[in-house]
Amino acid sequence: MTGRFVTVEGIEGVGKSTQLERLRARLVEGGHEVVTTREPGGTPLAERIRALVLERGEEGVPPAAELLLMFAARAVHTANRIRPALERGAWVLCDRYTDATYAYQGGGRGVGDASIAALAGLAHPGLQPDLTLLFDAPVGVALARARGRAQAADRIESETSIFFERVRAKYLEIARRDPDRVRVIDATRDTDAVEAAAWRHLAELGA
Amino acid sequence: MTGRFVTVEGIEGVGKSTQLERLRARLVEGGHEVVTTREPGGTPLAERIRALVLERGEEGVPPAAELLLMFAARAVHTANRIRPALERGAWVLCDRYTDATYAYQGGGRGVGDASIAALAGLAHPGLQPDLTLLFDAPVGVALARARGRAQAADRIESETSIFFERVRAKYLEIARRDPDRVRVIDATRDTDAVEAAAWRHLAELGA
Repeated sequence: MTGRFVTVEGIEGVGKSTQLERLRARLVEGGHEVVTTREPGGTPLAERIRALVLERGEEGVPPAAELLLMFAARAVHTANRIRPALERGAWVLCDRYTDATYAYQGGGRGVGDASIAALAGLAHPGLQPDLTLLFDAPVGVALARARGRAQAADRIESETSIFFERVRAKYLEIARRDPDRVRVIDATRDTDAVEAAAWRHLAELGA
Repeated sequence: MTGRFVTVEGIEGVGKSTQLERLRARLVEGGHEVVTTREPGGTPLAERIRALVLERGEEGVPPAAELLLMFAARAVHTANRIRPALERGAWVLCDRYTDATYAYQGGGRGVGDASIAALAGLAHPGLQPDLTLLFDAPVGVALARARGRAQAADRIESETSIFFERVRAKYLEIARRDPDRVRVIDATRDTDAVEAAAWRHLAELGA
């Protein structure tokens, strides 16, 4: 593979989407092919798998089934979209990936790391992001920002801030365990300063 | 749980369906509540998950996604149909379960036992069949029988007999490793003799 696989992580309200768009634009300006994609979803089939979880019909979806469906969607997204893009040399910027599962389902909901690692090993064997940008801010700051955005409000209101503290703690634990790959970016600064910090890591990767 | 969970396994053409129907009828005669169910499928949601694998649209389903979807369907089937039946004291007779994954995806296609075990631990934690009836016959005998049935012919013609030899060998390996649970029944005998052998194991379980 000659491309670069960059994932963007963090809790709601840390400014991931804004930064992802800015980084995409700068990479394109620099002459790179850039594929931006997001989880959950990423391909039509992956979206349909995810829709089974989200529709909440009369038959309940047990938590284990939800986790398995999430990784099935990720296996499809990885094989059908991410790997082909990397193989032709593109930069892939992905909004959330397996670190988000460790953070939300693991840190947030108590699913064991070993289960998640086993599923990741099946869904995307041998594929790790080359770089993960972890946008970090205190939960109170991030949620106050996110509450200003209508589309995020439902999901956020349905979780307590204690939940997001656990998610954030797990993200930071991942960064401590894998500091070469996962770069923590202080997302409390202004947008330009955050972009400059993020761009430095992309530049190290050859942007 | 007060019910009994009995699974029926074996390659195509060994007479599983006929025996399952006979055993069901005898259990009902004996005054038991009996739930017969089958994999893949078992509930409407589980069927829909499986349909995503089988429909073969324009977007390919990578093998890992197929395995994850299979276990997602199994998690749904187990939580929404099998466990509730066992909890109310029913006998559940299930045509194929996780042993079939070890045999077909593991023995047949080379998926590692450790991956399958990890998925099983997620999809149905703490649930093993109380009894597994493994109907066994030489591959040549079983396939000759199965070829007489139109609905099985497509699937069978698409695999070589070497594939089914590997599947059968894996089933027999499972039986050797877990002889208390998995009972091998010689399926080359006439239907009544096979039924008598199968029923003896159900009787030991309190039928």
